Parts: sequence; C-alpha cells; structure tokens
Amino acid sequence: MRVLILGGDGYLGWPTALRFSARGHEVAVVDNFSRRRWHREQGTDSLTPIRELDARVGAWREVSGSEIRSYVGAVEGGDFLDRVVAEIRPEAVVHYGEQPSAPYSMMSRERAVETRHTNVIGTLNLLFSLRDHAPDCHLVKLGTMGEYGTPKIDIEEGFIEIEHKGRRDTLPFPKLPGSLYHCSKVHDSTNLHFACRIWGLRATDLNQGVVYGIETEETAREERLITRFDYDEVFGTVLNRFCVQAVIGHPLTVYGSGGQTRGFLNIRDTLQCVELAVENPAEGGEFRVFNQFTEQFSVGQLAELVKHAGEHLGYSVEIQHLENPRVELEEHYYNAAHTKLLDLGLQPTLLGEELVESMLHAIERHKGRVIESSIDPHTRWNPGERVQL
Amino acid sequence: MRVLILGGDGYLGWPTALRFSARGHEVAVVDNFSRRRWHREQGTDSLTPIRELDARVGAWREVSGSEIRSYVGAVEGGDFLDRVVAEIRPEAVVHYGEQPSAPYSMMSRERAVETRHTNVIGTLNLLFSLRDHAPDCHLVKLGTMGEYGTPKIDIEEGFIEIEHKGRRDTLPFPKLPGSLYHCSKVHDSTNLHFACRIWGLRATDLNQGVVYGIETEETAREERLITRFDYDEVFGTVLNRFCVQAVIGHPLTVYGSGGQTRGFLNIRDTLQCVELAVENPAEGGEFRVFNQFTEQFSVGQLAELVKHAGEHLGYSVEIQHLENPRVELEEHYYNAAHTKLLDLGLQPTLLGEELVESMLHAIERHKGRVIESSIDPHTRWNPGERVQL
Repeated sequence: MRVLILGGDGYLGWPTALRFSARGHEVAVVDNFSRRRWHREQGTDSLTPIRELDARVGAWREVSGSEIRSYVGAVEGGDFLDRVVAEIRPEAVVHYGEQPSAPYSMMSRERAVETRHTNVIGTLNLLFSLRDHAPDCHLVKLGTMGEYGTPKIDIEEGFIEIEHKGRRDTLPFPKLPGSLYHCSKVHDSTNLHFACRIWGLRATDLNQGVVYGIETEETAREERLITRFDYDEVFGTVLNRFCVQAVIGHPLTVYGSGGQTRGFLNIRDTLQCVELAVENPAEGGEFRVFNQFTEQFSVGQLAELVKHAGEHLGYSVEIQHLENPRVELEEHYYNAAHTKLLDLGLQPTLLGEELVESMLHAIERHKGRVIESSIDPHTRWNPGERVQL
Repeated sequence: MRVLILGGDGYLGWPTALRFSARGHEVAVVDNFSRRRWHREQGTDSLTPIRELDARVGAWREVSGSEIRSYVGAVEGGDFLDRVVAEIRPEAVVHYGEQPSAPYSMMSRERAVETRHTNVIGTLNLLFSLRDHAPDCHLVKLGTMGEYGTPKIDIEEGFIEIEHKGRRDTLPFPKLPGSLYHCSKVHDSTNLHFACRIWGLRATDLNQGVVYGIETEETAREERLITRFDYDEVFGTVLNRFCVQAVIGHPLTVYGSGGQTRGFLNIRDTLQCVELAVENPAEGGEFRVFNQFTEQFSVGQLAELVKHAGEHLGYSVEIQHLENPRVELEEHYYNAAHTKLLDLGLQPTLLGEELVESMLHAIERHKGRVIESSIDPHTRWNPGERVQL
C-alpha cells in the first residue's frame, strides 16, 4: 500500500513511518521540521539525541533495505502538498503534521494564530488535495480526546444519539476544547466530517489520549532510529515529564489537585491503532471517529505510580502540587468510550510499574541532556494581562 | 456607549453603524473593503449605487450632525485590530467583518483558505484584542443558522440539554455546517465559547437566518446613505435574488426541489436584534447564543410569494427549478427555536406580499444596473474535478 505520513519526522510520525515500511508498504513522509524549530526557538530539545531526517532515512535503509521517501515542506503550503499528493497518489494518508501543544497555542496571539494556520488551514489544504488527486484515499487523522473536554455525561466515539422532544438523531458529540490547540482539533473534525459528507471522502479521526513511552519495536533496532522524547512544559506530556523528573531528582510537577482524569496510551499502541485504522479503512463518504486510548488515569495517580517505581529503582521522588497554570476542572466526572479499536483487534499494552521502570532506565541513559529550566510551567491559560490604558 | 462595528461598510454593518449613531452612541467602524474587492474581481456589483465609506460618513454627518469614526484595515491584521481596540476601548463590538458567502468559500482551495483566514483568524485576533485591551466589552458576533444544518431534531439556541446513560449535561448544540463558510462560523462559535469559559469574556453569538430587504429607517433618509444590495449567485441571498429576477424578467432560480427550509428575517429586524443584544449584554464569562430569525420558509414558498407579488405588479414571473449546485437535503425536518430575542422585546417585521412589493419597487429604480450574467449558479459544492493523473 502507498502510505503518506504527514509530520513524519515527529515523535509519533517517525515510528509510524518505520512501522509501515517494516510491514512492506511504500512509505513517504512529509515534514517541514517545525517541531525542531519550535524547540530551538525556546531553547529546549528532545531528551533523545535524534538524527536529522535524511540520516534517519539512511539508517533505516541500511538496517532494513527499505526506502522511505521524504518531502520537505509544509502542509499549510497548499501547492506543495498538492504536488506531493498528486505524485504519490497515496492509498492512505496518516496526518500528524500539526502543532501538537496546548501550552504553545496559549502563549500569545502570534502562536495561537500560527497553531490555527498550521493545523486548520493545513488540514483544509489536505482535504482539497485528496478531493482533487486521491479521492479514494483513506485519511487517518490524529485528533485528540481533549476535543471533548470534561462533560458531565459519558463521552462517546465521535457521535451521540440524542433523543429530544420526541425525535431522535445521531449527531457529532458536543465539544468543550480546553485550549486553543484543542479548538484547532475541533475545527479539523468539523472539516473532515464536512469533506466526507459533501465530497464523499473517507476519513478516520483518531481522538488520541495522552501518549507515553520512549521506543517502539523499530526505533529500538538501532541508535540512529530513535524518536524524539520531550519533557519540557510546552511539548512534554505528563507521564513522560514525570519520568524525566524522577530520574533527575526534580519534583513531579502536578498542576493543581491532580484530579484531572484523561485517557492514556503507550506509543506502541499508537502504532497498533494507526495500523488497524489503515488496514480497516472507512467507507467512501464515511467519517469515522475512534477514541484512541487504553486506560484512564488521573494526574495524581500517575505521579504516585512514577514515585513508587522511581523509589523502587533507588531514586528519591517528591510530588509537588503547583498552582494550576491552566483553566480546567481538577475534580470531574470522566468516562469515555474506547471500544472501536478493541473491536478491530487492539491488544493494549497496559501501564504498570515495570513499564515505568523501563522508561526510567531509558531516560537514565540520556539524563545528561536534560534542560531542567524548561520543565516548570510558565504558560498560563489566563495570564491576566489585561492592559489598563 | 462606545460601539465598534467590524465590517461597517457592508450590507448590514453600514445600517447598523447608522442606527447606533442615530441613537446617540459613539460609533467607530472598521472595514478593509474586501467585499467591494471580491465583487470587482468577479465582475459583479451591488444593485444599489453605494458611495465610498468616507462619502457615506460625510453624508451622515450632514444629515445627522453625528460623527462616525472609520478605520481602514483588516480584522485578520492582528496588530491593526489591537491598536483600534486599544484606542476606542469599546463597550460593545458588533462583528460583521467576515467573508459571508457559502458559494465563495466553495469555489476553490484558495478561496476556502481565504475564508478561513479572514473569518477564523480574524475572530481569534479580536478575542485576543478584547482580552488584552477591553475585557469587559460585550462582543456581539454574527453567526448563522446554517451552522446547525438540518438535523432530524428541533434546533435549540446554541445549547441543548442531553440526557445520556442516566446522566445529564447542557452542551453546545451539535453542528452540521453545509459549506466551508458555514464551517468557519462553527469554528468561530467554538472559539467564542472558549474565550468566555477560559478568559471570562462576554459574548453573544447571533445565529442569523437569511436576511432580506433593501433599506432601513436611516439608510432611507438620503440617497447617499443607501446600503449595498447583492443579487448575484455568490453574495446574493435567496429572497433578494428572487426579487431582482422578478423585476428584470429572469426566471426565479430555485435550486433543486425548493423544499429547503430556513429561517429568514428582514434587515430592519437585524438592526432591532443587534440593538437588543447590545442593550442587554451577556454576563462576564457568559457565551450566549440567540437564533436570529423571525419566520421559517422553504425556498419554494418564497418563490411562490415573489411570483404572486410580482404578477400583482404586472411583472411576468416564471419559476425555474435548476439542478441543485449544492449538496444539501431538499426535503427535511426543520424546527428551530427563536424565542430569546422575542423575550428581549423583538417586534418582528413579518414577510408578506406588501413587503415584497415594496422591495420590487425599490429594485425597479436600479434595474438598469443589474448584471444578469452573474445570477445563475456556477459554483458547485462537489465539482467532481477529480483529476486522474
């Protein structure tokens, strides 16, 4: 199968490219290295010393004998993307090519606009490219569980049947996004649904939970194949950040009470889910939504787990409750459906102390690279910068 | 009250500016004349010979003795908008400054992206400007009934109480936008709701129906104060277009069966509604949605009404059913709540033959200006331009 991976240089995009290549598919990746640029701009970096894309591709060629084609450019550049899609004529596109950080989107107007531009206009370009050059291609798009927010009812997978005043319809599940990044993902979902309804495209929106983990089967085969691993306040997600904190002796930074509950999954399961989605495509005209996570945890539970695992390995781990820089409920109802990927055959890798310990071991190897000043939260959701003129 | 009107040179924006100025408010308008530019680019024009903004403002000064301040620039220019908001420190912003045409948004990728940029990034800029320079200002934003689409259940005003698996919550009403323009309005709603929830802003989203009518109390006072009136396939809305067609002897262009049902209102009622919203502001942190229309009609009913009124005045009026260029249901359930503005005191101007006849009379005066080639639909929702490479 011809598989095009947008954002193929990223934390998940690169391992996904390796996975599909390892399975014998023809893989091409697109990236404009914006994630690397954003890190440089903020003086942060991946914990793992990742190689440049061409070196990674070369290493994979040596290791596997397979070629990954790479295109350097931005999805928000419509003409560029059009040319790539017309040239590859992909049977599946896996779209990770977005600005993925909630704090980044909340830093300033400029960064909020950049997020909107990259994500929403990028995806809109992609929908036009598929309509015009690959209308039967299956689009597998990374969304986020954060689109739903924390409603007081159970969260379903994308749609909900509503009975209202004696009538009934199945409609898009209402969204309560918690950051401007999450808003951009909600916009994407609306646009994907539209393109499937109006243009007959086929798409699967993977509303992914928070990903943790440092390696996959393929990235572990060779040092030059490792993927990035972020732990800073902007791009680091909570469990990855806690693990780095445990290793370097920095208190685990819990925002507020820590009662915030979310869905989580292992990076290895991200690859399983994307593979399952690609192997079982949506129908023409179908917009399908899968909630892509395996377990729910509160932030406080994760901190306790990392503390316990860390102490078992001899680290001294302290949990620190910081004033919450975000505007979010810290104690709330949360029960999200996630059966559709299980129905397709997902075998979850569950989180436990052993898994955390293996992450701590992997982090230990690179701990000299940690930039400790980038860990504590500086980005406030409501900065109170109300200028009185 | 200091009132800032974005898109103050437009069909609704200009009459709104006059209305608030006539009521004694301090009015400033922002416009970048993109609507005039889009018409020039397409070889179309307003039926009414509208004056340039500075000439209109001068005419209003002569007629009323009141000054309307004008700022020429784009809402999607964040720094410009920031300066204007900081200078005016508005107590209310009425935001019409968007690309308002569904067909325009469906013409090409470039125009879809432009619509997204103008509307979504423009409104995002505005939210930041309000947060930073006028956090207590009440934002009155024009949305559209078209955000809801045509679900099989009753449409409520912005939110719906959902009972699901024994639990209950009031959540944003699910949206099924019918064009990329309508998608952009859905995105705006998500962003407004976010800004109210997270930043404590106050906003009213006016989900407006299809507006008809050619003059308001203030625009009728002097020839130089008239507002624009569009009848072309891109910017002309259905009833206005039918009236022009009746006067020039062009068949009324009904798309498909004509069973499409929507909410409608008179331009005079738009001004009433906006006034009511401004006079009764949302609370701090509140995101309020009003469905702004007075009556529901099907396209077929409107065609019959115009045919009847036109023939009463001696025109020969034919109704033509064209192949529908849009992808939409032509026969569907439609029942949308619209009580909140009535509760605030809206006195509807109902549509009837007499009102249509007065529109036909007004159009008759300008019928020599009609560009007939711009009337029939050329923009297809699903152009089938699937390039086979």
